[in-house]
Amino acid sequence: MAEPAEITLTPAAPEHPRAGDPVFDLHLGGKLSVAATAPIRDKDDLSLAYTPGVALVCEAIAADPSLTQSYTWVPNTVAVVTDGTAVLGLGDIGPAAAMPVMEGKAVLFKQFGGVDGVPICLDTTDTEEIIETVVRLAPSFGGINLEDISAPRCFEIEDRLKELLDIPVFHDDQHGTAVVALAALKNALELTGRDAASTRVVISGAGAAGVAIAKILLEAGITDLAVTDRKGIVHSSRSDLTPVKRQLAEMTADKTGRTGTLAEALDGADVYLGVSGGTIPEEDVARMAPEAIIFAMANPTPEVHPDIAHKYARVVATGRSDFPNQINNVLAFPGIFRGAFDARATAITEGMKLAAAEALAELVGDQLAEDYIIPSPFDPRVGPAVAAAVSEAARRDGVARR
Amino acid sequence: MAEPAEITLTPAAPEHPRAGDPVFDLHLGGKLSVAATAPIRDKDDLSLAYTPGVALVCEAIAADPSLTQSYTWVPNTVAVVTDGTAVLGLGDIGPAAAMPVMEGKAVLFKQFGGVDGVPICLDTTDTEEIIETVVRLAPSFGGINLEDISAPRCFEIEDRLKELLDIPVFHDDQHGTAVVALAALKNALELTGRDAASTRVVISGAGAAGVAIAKILLEAGITDLAVTDRKGIVHSSRSDLTPVKRQLAEMTADKTGRTGTLAEALDGADVYLGVSGGTIPEEDVARMAPEAIIFAMANPTPEVHPDIAHKYARVVATGRSDFPNQINNVLAFPGIFRGAFDARATAITEGMKLAAAEALAELVGDQLAEDYIIPSPFDPRVGPAVAAAVSEAARRDGVARR
Repeated sequence: MAEPAEITLTPAAPEHPRAGDPVFDLHLGGKLSVAATAPIRDKDDLSLAYTPGVALVCEAIAADPSLTQSYTWVPNTVAVVTDGTAVLGLGDIGPAAAMPVMEGKAVLFKQFGGVDGVPICLDTTDTEEIIETVVRLAPSFGGINLEDISAPRCFEIEDRLKELLDIPVFHDDQHGTAVVALAALKNALELTGRDAASTRVVISGAGAAGVAIAKILLEAGITDLAVTDRKGIVHSSRSDLTPVKRQLAEMTADKTGRTGTLAEALDGADVYLGVSGGTIPEEDVARMAPEAIIFAMANPTPEVHPDIAHKYARVVATGRSDFPNQINNVLAFPGIFRGAFDARATAITEGMKLAAAEALAELVGDQLAEDYIIPSPFDPRVGPAVAAAVSEAARRDGVARR
Repeated sequence: MAEPAEITLTPAAPEHPRAGDPVFDLHLGGKLSVAATAPIRDKDDLSLAYTPGVALVCEAIAADPSLTQSYTWVPNTVAVVTDGTAVLGLGDIGPAAAMPVMEGKAVLFKQFGGVDGVPICLDTTDTEEIIETVVRLAPSFGGINLEDISAPRCFEIEDRLKELLDIPVFHDDQHGTAVVALAALKNALELTGRDAASTRVVISGAGAAGVAIAKILLEAGITDLAVTDRKGIVHSSRSDLTPVKRQLAEMTADKTGRTGTLAEALDGADVYLGVSGGTIPEEDVARMAPEAIIFAMANPTPEVHPDIAHKYARVVATGRSDFPNQINNVLAFPGIFRGAFDARATAITEGMKLAAAEALAELVGDQLAEDYIIPSPFDPRVGPAVAAAVSEAARRDGVARR
């Protein structure tokens, strides 16, 4: 009848059919657990953390819902929500197979942002069903991070949830990538002596990341911008555009009247941002302007290999950790949610994203160089700097509750 | 550019308007956090736990979904699902105010069962919406614990989810209470020299707990059983019965032809089990048989105060920790899920519940006495014994996958 200080039971060891493979060894039993921050060692603990004590907290919240912010884990908790339709480069592999990525995301949220992430893999790919399900779950979470949901559904799901909920909703594949790409581009423009207004930019890829990058670049002052899909530049004269691409065309190539292929778009372009996969022929890369900037962000195979890119460009970045200048959205999302949560923000505004990009860019400081336009994900200044800038912007934008 | 060994960011301290109250002090910031079991300290860790390594695990699960059991946290994770309609004795306080109880439940799951519990408080009270929402969430969890959902919706929700899902679904307010009550009653019958078949039992309360206790007692061999609600004994001649109560009547009082008030039901009864709240007048308690057994389980105020009950009964139990013989469902649910998960059970069968009750009753052993018919929640033998019995029953009942 001794009183246990800790858990009395541990799970039976899982079967391990891929033993010996370092990736599978690391994944055995998954990558997350739930920890009790209020352990129950005896009857007194039980009467405070559970009945009868807990009833006082429930009654207080029922009378004043804002107390949820103080006396539950909700305000530090983000649901990492996917339907498994666009997982990494693997595509539509379904909710069960998406779980290891969502667990990994939760690990990154914790490690780099002190945020409690809960993976939610949904057994539906229907836009309306995803929206209504997340709305029903919302009282359980302080924020919603949408992840690996395929375009164009991801746009409508995010837009509608932002309207329906008063907590931060953030589609990381769009905005995380966009924030980090903008931060790196700011520094690359500075290094090559360009200003945003006179820089010609081409983005290949009109999916979640491409659309979001285009939007944030426009907000950051880029005016000459063309986005390409498999059929070339997205412009309004084309008859095959989805509503999202039509809106994109109006914001980008229509302004300059550019039409044609990706190769034609690259002719004389200052900046190429790849979020499309596939490979660009070297002769097309060669058409870019002198001192060009190339961010070939497809993983694991960049659209232009850095060795080729460096023959024509002054600044080269990829999504890979084994080359300099890694455009990795772990630089953004943990600090963005940390900052939003610390300010008790009701949304993540465009101003908060721009502030995150600015804070990231500034961390490079005097060390700015061709191979250092963006900090490392393991630079301990990143999370605090992004979080502080985001909290401040939330207050500036009027969405902070503290 | 040092490499951090741990989290770089901690949440801003929450506001603490009720500082100084021990219950609120303990609840500050909530009672749970998500922990990473695979910390990411450097680029190598990142490439194993996240891209590119994680893609191998996703592909493996896509090809063989059973690998979810080995390489995700899913098989050890239970969603603690509520709609906030029947929280403790507080009633319909809504999903936000229910969260402290669900967090407490998750703490107990971890502490006593080594199970990772995730609170899910739903912003809907519609039966169909709750069912479809849980079905959509199901790929994220190894089991579903329904909690504090009001009757009669809780019955349909549980029944339908059991049909629709191939993971354990368990409504703790019903079955956790029923398992522990049965365990205690087994020992009380032994102590007073009764056998189940000739014992007359009265249950007051025809809600979630009352219905589940009635069913498990019938399975355990009790034959003379009457359940009462506010209008007296539930029997089929009444015109006001819901479908659930009609079914209950047919299983219980109709078999003996008993009708009338609770007081009449208690006349000569061997056992009284209270899960109704309210108070029973002493003169009604006095009508019970000699050496009566009284479990007055309402919290915080038992239907019969132990001081009164002891004047007429030989064995008395309550739901409270400050009297002997506490009927507390923390004795059951952590070990039941631990046992179900360790056996990779696809359901929680009646056999598994009966096995849990038997295991709990047996732990008392030679020490059986009037003030010791059920172990303490802090007895470290409880979880392992319940889990082992439940795993074994799962295999016997053909629902185990290992």
